[in-house]
Amino acid sequence: MISLILAGGKGVRLWPESRESRPKQLCSFFGDRTMLQHTVERLRAEGSREVMIITNRDQQQAIERLLYPHLIQEVDVVGEPVGKNTAPALGLALAQFQDSPDEVLAVFPSDHYIRDEAEFHRVLGKAEAAARRGYLVTVGIVPGYPETGYGYIRCAEEEVEGVPGVRRVSSFTEKPDEATARRYLEEGGYFWNAGIFVARVDTWLEEFARHLPSVYEMVRQGFQAYLDRYHDLPEVSLDYGIAEKSSRVAVVPGDFGWSDVGSWKALAELLDADAAGNVLVGDDIIAVDSRGCLVRQCQKTVALLGAEDLVVVETEDVIFVCPKHASQEVRRLVDVLRERRRHDLL
Amino acid sequence: MISLILAGGKGVRLWPESRESRPKQLCSFFGDRTMLQHTVERLRAEGSREVMIITNRDQQQAIERLLYPHLIQEVDVVGEPVGKNTAPALGLALAQFQDSPDEVLAVFPSDHYIRDEAEFHRVLGKAEAAARRGYLVTVGIVPGYPETGYGYIRCAEEEVEGVPGVRRVSSFTEKPDEATARRYLEEGGYFWNAGIFVARVDTWLEEFARHLPSVYEMVRQGFQAYLDRYHDLPEVSLDYGIAEKSSRVAVVPGDFGWSDVGSWKALAELLDADAAGNVLVGDDIIAVDSRGCLVRQCQKTVALLGAEDLVVVETEDVIFVCPKHASQEVRRLVDVLRERRRHDLL
Repeated sequence: MISLILAGGKGVRLWPESRESRPKQLCSFFGDRTMLQHTVERLRAEGSREVMIITNRDQQQAIERLLYPHLIQEVDVVGEPVGKNTAPALGLALAQFQDSPDEVLAVFPSDHYIRDEAEFHRVLGKAEAAARRGYLVTVGIVPGYPETGYGYIRCAEEEVEGVPGVRRVSSFTEKPDEATARRYLEEGGYFWNAGIFVARVDTWLEEFARHLPSVYEMVRQGFQAYLDRYHDLPEVSLDYGIAEKSSRVAVVPGDFGWSDVGSWKALAELLDADAAGNVLVGDDIIAVDSRGCLVRQCQKTVALLGAEDLVVVETEDVIFVCPKHASQEVRRLVDVLRERRRHDLL
Repeated sequence: MISLILAGGKGVRLWPESRESRPKQLCSFFGDRTMLQHTVERLRAEGSREVMIITNRDQQQAIERLLYPHLIQEVDVVGEPVGKNTAPALGLALAQFQDSPDEVLAVFPSDHYIRDEAEFHRVLGKAEAAARRGYLVTVGIVPGYPETGYGYIRCAEEEVEGVPGVRRVSSFTEKPDEATARRYLEEGGYFWNAGIFVARVDTWLEEFARHLPSVYEMVRQGFQAYLDRYHDLPEVSLDYGIAEKSSRVAVVPGDFGWSDVGSWKALAELLDADAAGNVLVGDDIIAVDSRGCLVRQCQKTVALLGAEDLVVVETEDVIFVCPKHASQEVRRLVDVLRERRRHDLL
C-alpha cells in the first residue's frame, strides 16, 4: 500500500500552540512527537510500501528536519508551490505512481488522533481489501454523539461482496445542524467523514478522468510537469471533486478512538486527567481547589486556584486563558490578532 | 505631627505579585509607585514634621533604595531586629520622640489605598484636633457593605467636646460573622478599624504605662537601648494591647475611598475598567469576548477568550489564574507552596 499524508493544513484551532507557521501537524500534544510523526509511524507500522507527505513549501524543510534521520529516507516529502486543496494534492501522488495501477493508494490527514492502532489497522485492512475489488473506500468513524462540526457519510444496505461489514455509500452530507445530527444517530447508518480514502491507483485514475478531467490530463504528463504547472490546477477538495460524485464509494466503519483534535476542549478529553479531572502538561504546575482544567506549561510556574474547566496554555511568547467551552471559538481571537497585525503571534 | 508608618507586614494576599520577600507595601498596583511610596507622599502632603517607617531588617535596604534620592533625607527608616507586632513598633517611635510630649504622633499602615486625599487630610485634621485634647483617636472607615474580614469600632453617643463629629468609642469588636456585620450596618454607629491611630506623645506614654508597663519601662531607656533589647519585648498588637483597653479612645468617621487591598478582587474594584469591565494592566493584553477580568501582564502576550471574572497575573516567574471570587483564598495556594518547599515562589 502507498500512503499519502496530506499535511498542508494551516490549522490554528489550537492557537497559541498551533500557528500558521507551526500548524497542528507540527505540534506535539501526545508525548514528545508531533501529530505528523505519529501519523507517519502509524502508517509505517501498517506496512506501507511508500509514504508520501504533501505539504506546502513553507513547511517542507521543517517536516524534513522532523523526520531526520530515521524516517527521512523512507518518506518522500513534497512541497506544493501553492495550496490547491486535497484533490490536486492527490493528483500529484497519482502522477508519481500512475505506472503502478494495481497498487492501493490511501490518503490520510496528517493531524488526527487515533487511540487504538490495532483496530485502526484491522479497519484499514478491510478498506484495502475492498479497494482491491475496485472500490473507492472511505473509513467512516462510528459517531459517539451528534457532532455538528463534521460531514457525515450515509451508507446503503448493500454490502461489498466478499468484504463483510463494508457497505456502499449512498451519500455524503454537509455539516448538519444539531437536530439533524441527532436524527442521524437515532436512525443509524451514518458515520463521520474523517478524510481517509483508499483505492487502487487505477480506480483513482478512472475517477479523476471522469470527474476532474483537467486534473487527470495533467496527471498523465508525469510528476515534474504536474508540479511545474501546479498553479493552473483548480482548487477543489477530494470530497467535493471525487468522493461525492463517484458511484463506487464504499465505507468501512471505524471505531478506534478517533479525534480530529479540533479544539483545546477536544484535546483535554484525549489526555489522562488526574483525580480532580485536571490535565496538567508540564513539570511546574500547581493546581489548588481546581478541577476540569487543561494546562500546558513550558517556562513559568503556572498556579491555579479555584479554577474550573479552564484552558491555560503557556507558550514561549503567549499566555492563553479561556473557558473550555469557549475554546472552539479560538478563531475569533486569531481574527483579532490578524486585524491588529500581530503577525508575530499568527 | 509625627507620622509613623508600620511597614513590617509580610502580606501574601496578592501573591504572586506580593511575596514574603516583596510584601504588598513594596508592590506597585497604582501606577509606577509602590503602596509605601504613596503612603509616604500622602503623609508628607499632610505636612508631617517627621515620617518614620518601621519595617523588618530584611526589608530595610529595599525601602531605603525605594525612597532614594528625594525622600530618604526626610524619612527615617528603622529595621526591627525581630517582628513583635504593632505595639512594640510604636514603642520604638515613642522611645525616639518621648522628649516631645506635646507632639501628635499618628500611626498608619503602609499598604492601604486612599482615593480621596483631600478628604483624608480633612479627617486627619479632625483626628489631630481631638488628639490635642488628650484623646487616643482612631479613624473609623464608614462601612460600605457588611464586610466580615475587618474588625469594627463601635462609637458611643458622646461627642468629643470642641471637635464636632468625633465621638467616644464604646468598644472594638473582632471580625464579625455575616449576620452580625449586617446588623452593624443596620444599627449604624459602627466603623471599620483601619489601623490608623492618632494621639499626643504624652497620651501614648500614659497609655503604655497603664496597659503595657513592661514596654513602657523599656521606652524610658531611650531609642538605642529599646532597639538593643527588642527581642525581650512582648508580641502584642496596638489594638489589643492599648486601644481596646484605653478609656479615652475617640473615633473620627472617614469616608475617603479606603481599601486595605486585601485581595485581587478588591484591587480590581479600585482600578479603572474598560467598557467590558476588564481591568487590563500591561501593554500586551488581548481580551476577546471577555468581561470582568483583572489581568496583569509583564512579558508574554496575555490572550483571553470568553473569560469572565478571572484574575490572571503574570510575574517574571509565575502565571497565576483564579476566578475573582476565589482570590481571597490565595493563602491556600501559598500554603501548598510552603508544603512543597517552593521557597523560590514565596
